[in-house]
Amino acid sequence: MKGLVYRGPGKKALEEVPHPRIEQPTDAVVKILRTTICGSDLHILKGDVPTVKPGTVLGHEGVGVIEEVGQAVSAFRKGDHVLISCISSCGRCEYCKRGMYSHCSVAGWMLGHTIHGTQAEYVRIPFADTSLHRIPDGMDEEALVMLSDILPTGFECGVLNGKVQPGSTVAIVGAGPVGLAALLTAQFYSPAEIIMIDLDDNRLEVALTFGATKTVNSGRENAVERVMALTGGIGVDTAIEAVGIPATFVLCQDIVAPGGTIANVGVHGTKADLHLERLWAHNITLTTRLVDTVTTPMLLKTVQSKKLDPQRLITHRFALADILEAYETFEKAAQTRALKVIIG
Amino acid sequence: MKGLVYRGPGKKALEEVPHPRIEQPTDAVVKILRTTICGSDLHILKGDVPTVKPGTVLGHEGVGVIEEVGQAVSAFRKGDHVLISCISSCGRCEYCKRGMYSHCSVAGWMLGHTIHGTQAEYVRIPFADTSLHRIPDGMDEEALVMLSDILPTGFECGVLNGKVQPGSTVAIVGAGPVGLAALLTAQFYSPAEIIMIDLDDNRLEVALTFGATKTVNSGRENAVERVMALTGGIGVDTAIEAVGIPATFVLCQDIVAPGGTIANVGVHGTKADLHLERLWAHNITLTTRLVDTVTTPMLLKTVQSKKLDPQRLITHRFALADILEAYETFEKAAQTRALKVIIG
Repeated sequence: MKGLVYRGPGKKALEEVPHPRIEQPTDAVVKILRTTICGSDLHILKGDVPTVKPGTVLGHEGVGVIEEVGQAVSAFRKGDHVLISCISSCGRCEYCKRGMYSHCSVAGWMLGHTIHGTQAEYVRIPFADTSLHRIPDGMDEEALVMLSDILPTGFECGVLNGKVQPGSTVAIVGAGPVGLAALLTAQFYSPAEIIMIDLDDNRLEVALTFGATKTVNSGRENAVERVMALTGGIGVDTAIEAVGIPATFVLCQDIVAPGGTIANVGVHGTKADLHLERLWAHNITLTTRLVDTVTTPMLLKTVQSKKLDPQRLITHRFALADILEAYETFEKAAQTRALKVIIG
Repeated sequence: MKGLVYRGPGKKALEEVPHPRIEQPTDAVVKILRTTICGSDLHILKGDVPTVKPGTVLGHEGVGVIEEVGQAVSAFRKGDHVLISCISSCGRCEYCKRGMYSHCSVAGWMLGHTIHGTQAEYVRIPFADTSLHRIPDGMDEEALVMLSDILPTGFECGVLNGKVQPGSTVAIVGAGPVGLAALLTAQFYSPAEIIMIDLDDNRLEVALTFGATKTVNSGRENAVERVMALTGGIGVDTAIEAVGIPATFVLCQDIVAPGGTIANVGVHGTKADLHLERLWAHNITLTTRLVDTVTTPMLLKTVQSKKLDPQRLITHRFALADILEAYETFEKAAQTRALKVIIG
């Protein structure tokens, strides 16, 4: 079968790879119907994630059909249509019992990281009973690929950790796919204002159509002054950091109101300054989180009840044979205006 | 009357100062029975708190007797014995409605900061109805001075923000009065371990008698290695920072477990590094807080029911006439073994 293989920093290829097979009784093998590319795949390709060994098939998002299950799998059988969670979880360890699947003692982020991933014709899913979700009949399967990672990430790491409340004021720094996922899901809680901050006018325009109440282009405007002017000089109750660099993290510190929350979503490669000389008495909360995907069943229901339309995040479609072109389209989002690209 | 007056960085004097009077109908004038000195008074004397103007009477802790009340004060009358909260609060603004008295729009930390404080014979208390607590009959008034600031600070900023839970593992970095206040009140929640970290063996010995289960002298031992060894390589669920310097704040980042909380209590004068390159995926929460004193009534009940003995924090006693000696004893705690010094 074909798979997109990481060949070391800067290198990838669509290659013939071995068909996955059941290795543990808790495994399932899933035929991939649709997958996508994540910002973290680009991080891997830059060489930022040394835990990914050359030779690994990338990808941790997708929907598919169960091809085969191990003898300990009881919730799924051949032919079931499933949504793949980017996080695999044993469901039994102390972290899983606490809903911290991302830190599962024996699993966690494995797909396209420590084992072969979803950018292939088939994938092996460990702990299938606790790491797959049955797709309810009649749902748009392509759109559900957005529920493998980016929607739970924006929702859990940004909206839930950020404690978005009715009437509150939210700023989202970074209008990429995850920032937009936070924007869509923040609206579950009816905040008064959602201020979207980015350097890219196209993404800010998209944000307005997705429900942002205000936008700030931080390349052209002083974002701190603008947010303070928009909030009566007080700042925002929730600042969601969805970029992953020190400058945007410090921006969040400059715009958070007393008693507010900074919810970090971005993947950071370096340390950042924390201005405790101001913030020690500011009664703030700061959170970090690798998505646990505990809210995937909840998000599925919001899609079914039409409170959430994940399809809006999809801009391009490619066959698996054209995945290198899909990568190029995703990487050059500023030119291509790509949000999420569907493969398959 | 006499009061301890701040005369600019490095300078203080016990001077004759004007007797306070009712200035607003919501004021009370309180005759001080007992007061104390806080670490933040030392910060002021170093010149670290420029919002304190020379000529200000210091002090924000104390118990006393109501001498006079303004016409809008309805909860207290002359002769009532009261505990003074270090935070004054109007009770009406948006922050007060949210229990964030420390950020009250018109009050907050005023005593010994923006108005004359409690290290004097009398003090004017703004918003008396919402900033004083009646002392129940038969209570040890001297011990209650510990409830003006340090016990609510250790409890709210450390224990509550740090989400100490039954069976959890707690580290408290800094065994000064506020760290010890966190140690005493953490035990309300029955954590499995409380590891106390400090440079001073005397304070660590005190911590053991106060209920710490382990102590680490970070001057002699590698505190990170030791805490990791004590926690099976996982780290602590709650790390309470009660020092206020970058090194101890970074130590907390090094010892917090996945899913854990760093509760900052220390007063910081400079920024610190936040190691987001490790912590972004560590699912941690970090909190800052200036004490709100919302838990003072609760803490009074824990003293009445003998779950908390604030008297243990008091090591020395001085008359107001000897307050300069009291300052010296408090400043040289490493030699004098002072925790809190009572004046009056």
